[in-house]
Amino acid sequence: MTTVNTNFLKLQSNYLFADIARKVSTFKEANPDKRVISLGIGDVTRPLVPAVVNALHKAVDEMGDAAHFHGYGPEQGYAFLRDIIVQYDYKARGVNLSADEVFVSDGAKPDVGNFQELFAQDSIVAVTDPVYPVYVDSNVMAGRSGEMTGKQWSSIVYLPCVKENDFVPDFPKTRPDMIYLCYPNNPTGTVLSRAALQGWVDYARREGCVILYDSAYEAFITDADIPHTIYELDGAEEVAVEFRSFSKTAGFTGLRCAYTVVPKALQISDGKGGKIGLNGLWNRRQCTKYNGCPYIVQRAAEAVYSEQGRKEIMGVIAGYQRNATMLRSAVSEMGLSVYGGVNAPYIWVRVPSDTDSWGFFDKLLQQAALVCTPGAGFGASGEGYVRLTAFGSPEDTEEAIKRLRSLC
Amino acid sequence: MTTVNTNFLKLQSNYLFADIARKVSTFKEANPDKRVISLGIGDVTRPLVPAVVNALHKAVDEMGDAAHFHGYGPEQGYAFLRDIIVQYDYKARGVNLSADEVFVSDGAKPDVGNFQELFAQDSIVAVTDPVYPVYVDSNVMAGRSGEMTGKQWSSIVYLPCVKENDFVPDFPKTRPDMIYLCYPNNPTGTVLSRAALQGWVDYARREGCVILYDSAYEAFITDADIPHTIYELDGAEEVAVEFRSFSKTAGFTGLRCAYTVVPKALQISDGKGGKIGLNGLWNRRQCTKYNGCPYIVQRAAEAVYSEQGRKEIMGVIAGYQRNATMLRSAVSEMGLSVYGGVNAPYIWVRVPSDTDSWGFFDKLLQQAALVCTPGAGFGASGEGYVRLTAFGSPEDTEEAIKRLRSLC
Repeated sequence: MTTVNTNFLKLQSNYLFADIARKVSTFKEANPDKRVISLGIGDVTRPLVPAVVNALHKAVDEMGDAAHFHGYGPEQGYAFLRDIIVQYDYKARGVNLSADEVFVSDGAKPDVGNFQELFAQDSIVAVTDPVYPVYVDSNVMAGRSGEMTGKQWSSIVYLPCVKENDFVPDFPKTRPDMIYLCYPNNPTGTVLSRAALQGWVDYARREGCVILYDSAYEAFITDADIPHTIYELDGAEEVAVEFRSFSKTAGFTGLRCAYTVVPKALQISDGKGGKIGLNGLWNRRQCTKYNGCPYIVQRAAEAVYSEQGRKEIMGVIAGYQRNATMLRSAVSEMGLSVYGGVNAPYIWVRVPSDTDSWGFFDKLLQQAALVCTPGAGFGASGEGYVRLTAFGSPEDTEEAIKRLRSLC
Repeated sequence: MTTVNTNFLKLQSNYLFADIARKVSTFKEANPDKRVISLGIGDVTRPLVPAVVNALHKAVDEMGDAAHFHGYGPEQGYAFLRDIIVQYDYKARGVNLSADEVFVSDGAKPDVGNFQELFAQDSIVAVTDPVYPVYVDSNVMAGRSGEMTGKQWSSIVYLPCVKENDFVPDFPKTRPDMIYLCYPNNPTGTVLSRAALQGWVDYARREGCVILYDSAYEAFITDADIPHTIYELDGAEEVAVEFRSFSKTAGFTGLRCAYTVVPKALQISDGKGGKIGLNGLWNRRQCTKYNGCPYIVQRAAEAVYSEQGRKEIMGVIAGYQRNATMLRSAVSEMGLSVYGGVNAPYIWVRVPSDTDSWGFFDKLLQQAALVCTPGAGFGASGEGYVRLTAFGSPEDTEEAIKRLRSLC
């Protein structure tokens, strides 16, 4: 009989969001008069901006016209989009990339989840803790996790990010092959300074590691010292892959467009004493198992870079940033330590010492009809924290803040 | 140093279409006055139908409106689309499926390429020969191919489909775990009768195999005896996964929407003496590494099933079918044996005995300025054949036929 990839059986269902939903549902039944506001959701709420909507309508009309119809596109994305990405997201920041180092796709999650296929099965994986679960789960499925012992996998190298180390991961004792870094960070909302990120690039060059750099929240960076792309750092093109997305930048969570940068200078061992470039390998992977992002969606992404598009999108992000600032203040006024929320849409709150992640979740729900995400759901080092997000409407966020203040 | 997945290094670049492009380019330079017509391309050329275009415009407007905006959708697809798929593609044919056995995605190629992840690494893979290369290449990358010996992989089980067996694959001597079948077939355009497909379902049930059934060309079926879905056959829900696509059905090659059916009755060994359902495993895979098909594209797919949509799409397919019929006649009049093209957009031509796939390709190009695809590019058993496609415009197809007749 055909047999399963037994690595899949190691994965338990992630009950975090299901547990949250059940608690919220029970609360609503018991309190039908109270309006629950979610500060837990990691999804945008503002609509697509007019420049993007107009580009979509135009592209849809092309698809209905034999003279301008587009069938299969290049698996790597259309040149019009790859070129403009290079120009605005890289050249404008002093980074030289060529368009064939940019691979357009339908999401950073698929790219991050699939990229590990290129590496040897016995590669050692390092992740920060707390962490976005996809980095870990995709490597569990690939057989790189070892066994679950307590709350951690025996073969995964965890890099704790807690207030004690100012949320800057220390170099691990065990040398990893692949290092997942996400900055601005989900879930903590913290960032790495230029110096700290240069330290990781230098470490990777010294130790022969590959950094898988998830930069999905780049658009929220406000501080001048925070790098917008890892390729601003010396030598990063030799060790780092960068994942970017239009999801949080331009509200594309339901439209689906992202891109992954794989520099040609990035080479790994071919297992036979030579080297091989990841750019060609990823190209081969995408050509075999992917068929390109929809033409109309790529035209929408192109519009994000137009003068009108950039202006409109900056307005949307400024709104989310105002939410973040207000939430930070309100939580501080409650006497709690708060991290993140300056260069990121996520706010990471240290819960009072007499409770834990879930205890504080329950308090916010029962006393203020507010929903947050317990930090323990993102890993062992997330215990004692909750995550708030700034993606709500201004009205909901203001109402949430009133309720938080009432708890003081 | 980080090491590559060495299975990727086994894959040579597929030079088939690059070789074709080079030959065509050389011909054009030498014959600037001749207009080359391609009968080689596997992509549609007709635009999206009005019902689909209208649905797209409507959905785009929703995405620009805060009250109707859609962010992250369900990884498995929206209920409105899964429900209508079950109703029109299955219940209407007497097949009972539930909506949660249907997984909407951005393409049959990604689904077919990714599905093998669910199986044990040492699973034995069977493919027909000739074959769509993705089935083989995705398993090479996963380490299931063995080594290349001559023109075949040592660990892959090949099922020749040639005129001698009427293009119906015989059961293999070695029992495979996974069997890839594509009907209506790419590249041969041939089909399996109900009895022949029942034979394969029975074989899989007897031997404990899983059939990965690619049915991307289902919309081209005209003969009443040809099953439209493998689930029309007794017991298929216990052994078969079905891949379907809107690409060739509704011209979505550039819009990207497909779906994969994973029945809950389909169970495989869990490697520990028990069984496990593929439905839950695929759901877990998709939730971890995929983020759903764009909302606007799912609304477009929904419109394919509307009364207007179905009428318009049947008109487009009828046009391609007329092309196929004309091409079949013209090739027959040349005195050549011709297969396929009745229930499929592909026509498989036996080349004259004094030449081979590439020789006949050269003859068509040099003498008629026509481009076909050499069958040898699809596998060893494709030698001696070429593939013609019916996806051209009516005008181009008629001109191509004139040129074919001039060769008689």
